[in-house]
Amino acid sequence: MDIVIKGGTLVLGEGVFPAEIGITGEKVAAVGQSLDGGRVIEATGCLVLPGGIDAHTHLGLSLGPDLASSDDFESGTIAAACGGTTTVINYAEQCGYASLLEALDAWQAKAAGRAVIDYSFHMLIIDPCPDVIEEMAAIVQQGVTSFKALLAYKGIVMLDDAQLFRVLERARDLRALVNVHAENGHLIDELVAACRAAGQTAPRYHALTRPEVAEAEATERALALAEAAGAPIYIVHITCARAVDALRRAQARGQAAFGETCPQYLLLDERVYESEDFDTAAGYVLSPPLRERGNQGALWTALTAGTIQTVGTDHCPFTREQKARGRDDFTLIPNGLPGVETRVPLLYHYGVREGRLSLSDWVRLTATNPARLFGLYPRKGTLLPGSDADLVIFDPGKRVILDAGHLHTHTDYSPYAGWEVQGWPRHVLQRGRFIVEDGEFVGQAGGGRFIPRRPFALPASLA
Amino acid sequence: MDIVIKGGTLVLGEGVFPAEIGITGEKVAAVGQSLDGGRVIEATGCLVLPGGIDAHTHLGLSLGPDLASSDDFESGTIAAACGGTTTVINYAEQCGYASLLEALDAWQAKAAGRAVIDYSFHMLIIDPCPDVIEEMAAIVQQGVTSFKALLAYKGIVMLDDAQLFRVLERARDLRALVNVHAENGHLIDELVAACRAAGQTAPRYHALTRPEVAEAEATERALALAEAAGAPIYIVHITCARAVDALRRAQARGQAAFGETCPQYLLLDERVYESEDFDTAAGYVLSPPLRERGNQGALWTALTAGTIQTVGTDHCPFTREQKARGRDDFTLIPNGLPGVETRVPLLYHYGVREGRLSLSDWVRLTATNPARLFGLYPRKGTLLPGSDADLVIFDPGKRVILDAGHLHTHTDYSPYAGWEVQGWPRHVLQRGRFIVEDGEFVGQAGGGRFIPRRPFALPASLA
Amino acid sequence: MDIVIKGGTLVLGEGVFPAEIGITGEKVAAVGQSLDGGRVIEATGCLVLPGGIDAHTHLGLSLGPDLASSDDFESGTIAAACGGTTTVINYAEQCGYASLLEALDAWQAKAAGRAVIDYSFHMLIIDPCPDVIEEMAAIVQQGVTSFKALLAYKGIVMLDDAQLFRVLERARDLRALVNVHAENGHLIDELVAACRAAGQTAPRYHALTRPEVAEAEATERALALAEAAGAPIYIVHITCARAVDALRRAQARGQAAFGETCPQYLLLDERVYESEDFDTAAGYVLSPPLRERGNQGALWTALTAGTIQTVGTDHCPFTREQKARGRDDFTLIPNGLPGVETRVPLLYHYGVREGRLSLSDWVRLTATNPARLFGLYPRKGTLLPGSDADLVIFDPGKRVILDAGHLHTHTDYSPYAGWEVQGWPRHVLQRGRFIVEDGEFVGQAGGGRFIPRRPFALPASLA
Amino acid sequence: MDIVIKGGTLVLGEGVFPAEIGITGEKVAAVGQSLDGGRVIEATGCLVLPGGIDAHTHLGLSLGPDLASSDDFESGTIAAACGGTTTVINYAEQCGYASLLEALDAWQAKAAGRAVIDYSFHMLIIDPCPDVIEEMAAIVQQGVTSFKALLAYKGIVMLDDAQLFRVLERARDLRALVNVHAENGHLIDELVAACRAAGQTAPRYHALTRPEVAEAEATERALALAEAAGAPIYIVHITCARAVDALRRAQARGQAAFGETCPQYLLLDERVYESEDFDTAAGYVLSPPLRERGNQGALWTALTAGTIQTVGTDHCPFTREQKARGRDDFTLIPNGLPGVETRVPLLYHYGVREGRLSLSDWVRLTATNPARLFGLYPRKGTLLPGSDADLVIFDPGKRVILDAGHLHTHTDYSPYAGWEVQGWPRHVLQRGRFIVEDGEFVGQAGGGRFIPRRPFALPASLA
Repeated sequence: MDIVIKGGTLVLGEGVFPAEIGITGEKVAAVGQSLDGGRVIEATGCLVLPGGIDAHTHLGLSLGPDLASSDDFESGTIAAACGGTTTVINYAEQCGYASLLEALDAWQAKAAGRAVIDYSFHMLIIDPCPDVIEEMAAIVQQGVTSFKALLAYKGIVMLDDAQLFRVLERARDLRALVNVHAENGHLIDELVAACRAAGQTAPRYHALTRPEVAEAEATERALALAEAAGAPIYIVHITCARAVDALRRAQARGQAAFGETCPQYLLLDERVYESEDFDTAAGYVLSPPLRERGNQGALWTALTAGTIQTVGTDHCPFTREQKARGRDDFTLIPNGLPGVETRVPLLYHYGVREGRLSLSDWVRLTATNPARLFGLYPRKGTLLPGSDADLVIFDPGKRVILDAGHLHTHTDYSPYAGWEVQGWPRHVLQRGRFIVEDGEFVGQAGGGRFIPRRPFALPASLA
Repeated sequence: MDIVIKGGTLVLGEGVFPAEIGITGEKVAAVGQSLDGGRVIEATGCLVLPGGIDAHTHLGLSLGPDLASSDDFESGTIAAACGGTTTVINYAEQCGYASLLEALDAWQAKAAGRAVIDYSFHMLIIDPCPDVIEEMAAIVQQGVTSFKALLAYKGIVMLDDAQLFRVLERARDLRALVNVHAENGHLIDELVAACRAAGQTAPRYHALTRPEVAEAEATERALALAEAAGAPIYIVHITCARAVDALRRAQARGQAAFGETCPQYLLLDERVYESEDFDTAAGYVLSPPLRERGNQGALWTALTAGTIQTVGTDHCPFTREQKARGRDDFTLIPNGLPGVETRVPLLYHYGVREGRLSLSDWVRLTATNPARLFGLYPRKGTLLPGSDADLVIFDPGKRVILDAGHLHTHTDYSPYAGWEVQGWPRHVLQRGRFIVEDGEFVGQAGGGRFIPRRPFALPASLA
Repeated sequence: MDIVIKGGTLVLGEGVFPAEIGITGEKVAAVGQSLDGGRVIEATGCLVLPGGIDAHTHLGLSLGPDLASSDDFESGTIAAACGGTTTVINYAEQCGYASLLEALDAWQAKAAGRAVIDYSFHMLIIDPCPDVIEEMAAIVQQGVTSFKALLAYKGIVMLDDAQLFRVLERARDLRALVNVHAENGHLIDELVAACRAAGQTAPRYHALTRPEVAEAEATERALALAEAAGAPIYIVHITCARAVDALRRAQARGQAAFGETCPQYLLLDERVYESEDFDTAAGYVLSPPLRERGNQGALWTALTAGTIQTVGTDHCPFTREQKARGRDDFTLIPNGLPGVETRVPLLYHYGVREGRLSLSDWVRLTATNPARLFGLYPRKGTLLPGSDADLVIFDPGKRVILDAGHLHTHTDYSPYAGWEVQGWPRHVLQRGRFIVEDGEFVGQAGGGRFIPRRPFALPASLA
Repeated sequence: MDIVIKGGTLVLGEGVFPAEIGITGEKVAAVGQSLDGGRVIEATGCLVLPGGIDAHTHLGLSLGPDLASSDDFESGTIAAACGGTTTVINYAEQCGYASLLEALDAWQAKAAGRAVIDYSFHMLIIDPCPDVIEEMAAIVQQGVTSFKALLAYKGIVMLDDAQLFRVLERARDLRALVNVHAENGHLIDELVAACRAAGQTAPRYHALTRPEVAEAEATERALALAEAAGAPIYIVHITCARAVDALRRAQARGQAAFGETCPQYLLLDERVYESEDFDTAAGYVLSPPLRERGNQGALWTALTAGTIQTVGTDHCPFTREQKARGRDDFTLIPNGLPGVETRVPLLYHYGVREGRLSLSDWVRLTATNPARLFGLYPRKGTLLPGSDADLVIFDPGKRVILDAGHLHTHTDYSPYAGWEVQGWPRHVLQRGRFIVEDGEFVGQAGGGRFIPRRPFALPASLA
């Protein structure tokens, strides 16, 4: 074996073991004790984990001719790597292309030669006309086995129920998993119009025009359509107790229904919108918005009760300058937050250290479950023989103060600015090579590869 | 390595891998590829699984001076081994002893020198007086980190709510997990008295006097008391949708609440009690009784939705002659069914083959989750380096017709008589040694060991 | 007083009393004992009830140039009168009119001079453009204080969520109650298209393409939009347990959410669609369709538990010849059943006589609650001083075999053909005058009046 | 007619009418317009309501040789009358008597010659031995058609589940309604013992030792036992959302399950226990205790959604001196609050005036529903011909500051001290005679009568 990692505590989604990891080439060759190998990496006192998988990023997102999320595939994946994430599944938007394949090609081109970690795409569908429905098979054949549909942003990307149903039925036949952004765009647009008519322009109206009921309703609806289609479904960025309840009832009916939440919904709340400072409030404008604090307990419980299976980030950063476009009109504030770098450490600090999650829960939510749901497992998301040697040697004692200056994402603020967390990646390996060493990024643009994914497999309990 | 298992598909609770298992002495030494070892066991075409753990058996149960379950630790564990189970956790009853330690000693003596597979005990508490509550610590120190309490069988083993609460509080402090038999004994006894007064003596009245509401109520109550105590809880042998719903609501409140069902509740229903033949009907008399068929879907869904974590058996066989004691009075029919030998194959056939469970679900429900809940993990319940080399080489193509004549349990009937299942253990190893080879038992009485268990660890999501 | 009704048992929504009713002119003058009056109507052995109110009829419904429901305002209201109903609230469709007022005028013209009982309209909105939204106020000013919106029949009458939300907000401001037909038209049309593509043309596919999930989803959604609007809402023709559950959860959240079911959903089930005889199956084609029988218990319980407040009929009859249009294509079968004449007796027989409803429940569900919800109370729906003297002297002993030949609706079949019910109206008075005497219709075309209704009043618990 | 009340607005549980009430002797003779009568009572600007019925009082409750609730049947009923309540149903305790009949006789003697308003009893059962179960029939024959059972106060009045089940079955056969105090006495006593052991003696520990889970659990259990018995059930003094949820689920299963809450749970919350002043905190010590404020919304919603049917008071006052017995030990504080005088006005002010209840809701919750549930209707609880002429002429404009000095109950504090309410009874008549005139009590000790009640009638929807 080329490398043996010794002395650490192996944390898998299934359990925690004192075990060594042997790596040959890009793969895990063995998990065992007293393994022989060339280079020995010392991990005493550290946790050894599968590299994180963030199944919800928006690197390189273009929102118009002169507006794009501030991380491209290079800066965003450097940030991911430094935070212990070795694979992202980024949303590839159909926008601007009649053909999904053309759109996917364009997104492949955005990533190729830039990404420093491995990546895949979810294919976002905005116009499920017959040709596009037909073309979904070709996308799956390229190893992109998940699609995304939105029930918000009317006139831009929102699908109506017939369209979503067609996507779900086709995805079912293709063994692909549909991700749904569940907010009722009709309702939101009505509320926005009323605010505009009333001259209510401040960031706080962003939250008030996207109430919980808009999310709860759309979640119920997406689940019902998936039930009618006999298709599995994955609800992204769940924020509130009511949406959790809808998901739980679907699961109790026997549906293959899955959910994701994000660190910002577990840790932040709507009071940030009350800030008199535009930059501060606008920095937290994302969709769905932050909620009343009482929802956080329901989300944490959903993570351990197995109702929600994954924690992604919806990483979609903008700079303060970009956010300032909406200074006089909250609807012009670009929506989104950075998050890809802080996800794994925040979940460790507020989850594991504060007793809400076990070590295995942490790994399962941030790596194993995304891998299983999205056809990467067991290549990614675990560290068993044959798995890619993507791993994090995590120092549970290292204290880091979160701050835009030290983080690697291209934004000039952090939603968690000033928070101190304990626990941070020391080394990160991708396919057997260091990409972070002693906390420093040592990888290279283009070092990441596109990973074709396997079809969705049913049934699978994931909690 | 002493042994290498090659060519099989490794099925763990976490996933399915093409991997070899290397064994040194009693332990798994490595999981990997191209492993070197002395003896090679060929497993091509087979599944390689961690040995099953049946956390609910009643071997050697005495119900009075002249009545005992028909399997002792030898016959019962031979049956277990042949069916792919390498560890049982048997109920050690306090009955007849003022001291828990004395009772445990007596149960240790029953098992020692007889058990052919590894074993542990849950300590059943029938009189939680202050001395007994105090003594619970000594039991835990012996590695018996779970207790059992019953809410039925008034005047025999039933605890009242204050007693159960004391047990829960103490168990919480000792990091032990309380198993609860949740049926309302008060209600059942009232219904039984009414049947007796009306001269209703047939086996069907057993089921009619133990209605779902008695189970649903007691399940709610046990969960509430655990919530008040801040203690984890494990509800044994859940049979019906209402009890599942109670458990689901407790989990949604954030409780560390777990549940078990049994193959008989997943596969059989109350129509068996309508048989005119006493022997036939009496053979299915167990507590809780079989339910209306509509509950089965809810139970299967609970297994994949993560509401119920384990499938045990409540193995407690009696012969027809023993059952005949209740020919004129259903209350005298000894309660119980055999099941320890058929659990793993039935779950494979009706779960995996019929598309209700994934392979990983199957292993998780029958091995990994019992191990994690009861402090055996990762020594048992998985096959990772350092784990005991307890494993099953399972032939997914072998067809077996279930029949008391071929099964190894000491009963003269099978509840599944005549059913054909596909998939059966070919070889079974315990701690590196064959105990079943080519389907034949090759172990020996006393080959099994008492396994001290670790404390209950919180939080842990298990689905 | 002009008339005194003596000897009967007065049944109001609130309770049952031995009391006389005194009538002066068109009004109840007194409720008491030993009242003096001119004409005495003997009611010994009979129940004296407020005249029934059927808040869901489609008299005079045009479905195109050559297709209309087979009852006009004369035949339909004669049937209503004979069955104990003295007021109908009919759906006035906007179809074909840009202006609601014009549409309402047209409907007023259809009814005037023909209706034999009193009537009102719900105004159905199919195009809630700004002018129509504005015009809603004028409709309310005419005493039409309820509107209807449909979430099915895409491209014909279906509103999208933004449109429904606008209607709800406007109705809230105008203190009007929005009735919603809750089925997801998008989903239904997709399922219909699939059946057509597969050449599945028989009536049973009508039911299979309008599954429960389509109703459950749309019910959830309508309730959510009403919640967001802060508007009261009334879900028409609820058919299944899942929709009841959605309504119950909305009420538990504190919403002013109300529901209606119909006798056909309480008494009939989907097995009728299996008939090989097209006429038989087509006779039961209505929307939503009849459901699995298990839903009936949930609907009956919802009536007494206060979850559903009213029983209407969705009376919309067609002849067999009309139904035959869909012989080769189920989508061409005109949807609907007769029901206005049999509602009150069916609820008496299967509700009161079979122990599911109290006498007061019966009157509340069929008269008092519709009156209260739709602004007719206390003029209609009760018999207290000042109320219109609309009343039924109901003979609880009279047996009637239901049969199209004897019933008064203009259809050549009855969905209940051959059923015998006990209990039927003997006399019916409207505003103090006999319209049915000894079971014979004695009223006259044009005897009915348009009744302006009061605004919706909140809060009101109605069960 | 002897008396005619003119000019007022008649408020019944069913609706609101401009109507006159004619009284002949003790009875309502007519409800109508332009009635003729001897004495005319002018009610212009006032509401005319049926006299309130408080189905939950503890007048004359003895808690030992030297401790009794501070209101006897005279002072307590004077307070009731002044607050608009003309009938109380008081708990008659079995305590100290082997025979229910003897106990009832003793309670009849306590009331006779003292009560100034009409009264009945619920018979509290503490020892349901076979003789007592048998004797229940004799109690019902005396017109006492409801019983009470407690699941708290172990060793004093608590029943076990078998005992409660026997009472429920017997009551079902006798058509009586069982009232249940639903708190888990086992759990409470364990928590109390722990507080005592820890030297925690302040009033706040009263609340901490009777947590919501104790009520929620016992509510579930009582409902389950009633379901098993096929008996109707009435849960007294519901305080929290979880108990409401349990009741709602029972109703959704189709059970005849009813509930009561009290003004104190709607209006006060647990923060009062934080007072440093013993007298203040102790003044609010009652069982169940006041809860977190978040429960109030759920209770108000339950009133209008029809989940909870009545508002009683649990009137059980003690003086500060009496409360002071528990200065050093919260378990010695006599439990209870005054409330019988303020119930109707508080519900008017905080319910009707603040928009939470309609006028009819108010009357239904405080008079009509208690009458219907407890067999007093239509003699009491409404004002229809034949009803007792028990009525309140309520001045909706009168402002009153609540204060122990002005209220008539024999206590030296009010839980609502200093609160100003608008709306108070001007005149109160019982069976046609003034007992309160212009706000002054004008009745006399012994003017009230024992009212035999009718059996419980099923089904009845009451919301």
